[in-house]
Amino acid sequence: MLIVPEREIADLMTREAAFDAVEKVFAAMASGDAYNFPVVREAIGHEDALYGFKGGFDRAGLTLGLKAGGYWPNNLDKRGIINHQSTVFLFDPDTGMVKAMVGGNLLTALRTAAASSVSIRHLARKDARVIGMIGAGHQARFQLRAALEQRDFEKVIGWNFHPEMLPNLQEVAEAAGLPFEAVELDGMREADVIVSITSSFDAILGADQVSPGTHVACMGTDTKGKKEVDPQLLVRADVFTDEVAQSVSIGEAQHAVGRGLISEADVAQLGAVINGSHAGRSSDDQITLFDGTGVGLQDLAVAAAVVDLAVERGIAIEVDF
Amino acid sequence: MLIVPEREIADLMTREAAFDAVEKVFAAMASGDAYNFPVVREAIGHEDALYGFKGGFDRAGLTLGLKAGGYWPNNLDKRGIINHQSTVFLFDPDTGMVKAMVGGNLLTALRTAAASSVSIRHLARKDARVIGMIGAGHQARFQLRAALEQRDFEKVIGWNFHPEMLPNLQEVAEAAGLPFEAVELDGMREADVIVSITSSFDAILGADQVSPGTHVACMGTDTKGKKEVDPQLLVRADVFTDEVAQSVSIGEAQHAVGRGLISEADVAQLGAVINGSHAGRSSDDQITLFDGTGVGLQDLAVAAAVVDLAVERGIAIEVDF
Repeated sequence: MLIVPEREIADLMTREAAFDAVEKVFAAMASGDAYNFPVVREAIGHEDALYGFKGGFDRAGLTLGLKAGGYWPNNLDKRGIINHQSTVFLFDPDTGMVKAMVGGNLLTALRTAAASSVSIRHLARKDARVIGMIGAGHQARFQLRAALEQRDFEKVIGWNFHPEMLPNLQEVAEAAGLPFEAVELDGMREADVIVSITSSFDAILGADQVSPGTHVACMGTDTKGKKEVDPQLLVRADVFTDEVAQSVSIGEAQHAVGRGLISEADVAQLGAVINGSHAGRSSDDQITLFDGTGVGLQDLAVAAAVVDLAVERGIAIEVDF
Repeated sequence: MLIVPEREIADLMTREAAFDAVEKVFAAMASGDAYNFPVVREAIGHEDALYGFKGGFDRAGLTLGLKAGGYWPNNLDKRGIINHQSTVFLFDPDTGMVKAMVGGNLLTALRTAAASSVSIRHLARKDARVIGMIGAGHQARFQLRAALEQRDFEKVIGWNFHPEMLPNLQEVAEAAGLPFEAVELDGMREADVIVSITSSFDAILGADQVSPGTHVACMGTDTKGKKEVDPQLLVRADVFTDEVAQSVSIGEAQHAVGRGLISEADVAQLGAVINGSHAGRSSDDQITLFDGTGVGLQDLAVAAAVVDLAVERGIAIEVDF
């Protein structure tokens, strides 16, 4: 079996490879070739940790396995290591034998960024020029970097609950040669694409703070109770997601569906747009919204890609298991 | 992190170590220190395979992780490798980082055998002399070998749907210096301890084929629909199990509980007997029945034990992950 340690991922994995892997597996999910298993997520009563497993199988890519790990909130303060800790295990679908073990921390950031980036490629207007960021934490940098590759953006605007973190966005913008401007939420009306990446439990972005024709990627809501935007925005928008079952239960759509503002049938799979079985954006005035909840298959897809890259470059550790 | 490949397990792991690990974790489950996570089990639609994850956390032993793998029915015929394939992954409960990867195939056999052996130690009559085996497959050998250590048995009797497999049992009996006798099911009345280890979907052992005072360990039923004994036997017996929720849903007790013959409250945890919070066997005439359904914590416990042994003997493979 092959091992790719966490420390190797940064040099190996590219945003392009993550994009391709996530785009492909979203398409496989929509065509019925790939599916995610029920998620296990446990508050284990030790170190306030959340721990669990996200597994899945992609018949098209022959990727089988799981991401195991979770959130250890005291890691950084107590031990100087990051709070999100995960590892991906890939299995041979022909035999059930373990095939690879891959560090999952950076991959999780890259696959999450790739998801909103895929949504931008397939749903944003071609002439999008202003990108708005809501949230300016560690993950926001990944989201912005990946998003910038999808259109000829000319300006980045940003808002964060703690404005002192906005330089995180400014740095990424300037590295891409783009001006950055801090705005109030009303200022988001200028944006053609908005990426929201927070851990909020209250709506931040109002339905009237989004202009017609905008594409909104809500990437922060992955738990019951979390909420980034006014549910009325989902009424105005055409809503897409990675996985409908998650979107309506733990994703951003949980609120609009829960209150009967939209129905589950109003939430389409982004993979169907990639496949061409859904037309996607219907007009230049339509608001599109991608509810990115994060699925195990994304993790498996990027991990499989990184294993291939590690083998190619001769840096996968081989263990006779 | 540490790796203990499948090929090392046979030399490392002892029945005693498996027994101790399983006994301890059953006790921790009963005292509320350890719990199993929801089981994921998927028919993946490829190679007719069943694949999934059994995880858990033992706060007392600080063992966290999962067994991943399943059943690939074509492995043996197509590839000459065994059909049950599994791997155990242990995590550090203080940080969420992966700690060890251990081959799970032989361990699964040993932990299953240890479970019935633990039940015999705590529930069988001290003067048990005849042990009856129902089932004579690969796993039956492990069950018998482990069971023989618990009492001063003088004879092994056995029944199997395919009698030509009975030499499997005979070999183990004779290796222990005991006579073996093939019997009809009525002959099981001679047994003081009966271990049933089949994949049957119909009751094999009748309620009247068990004598008063016998301890019966039903080890084969781990799925909805499977059944090894007449549900009336559970009415006659005091019923114990590894995990009550599994026992009444996928274990042997599913039938008696489902038909209202006994209630969930009639099923006690074997761990409570180990802890001393349940008296266990109430008289020499009472039939006791252990419904062994198999839980993830057993796998984690034996895997943690084998990692310790591998470190001690200097044969754990260390990978800088």
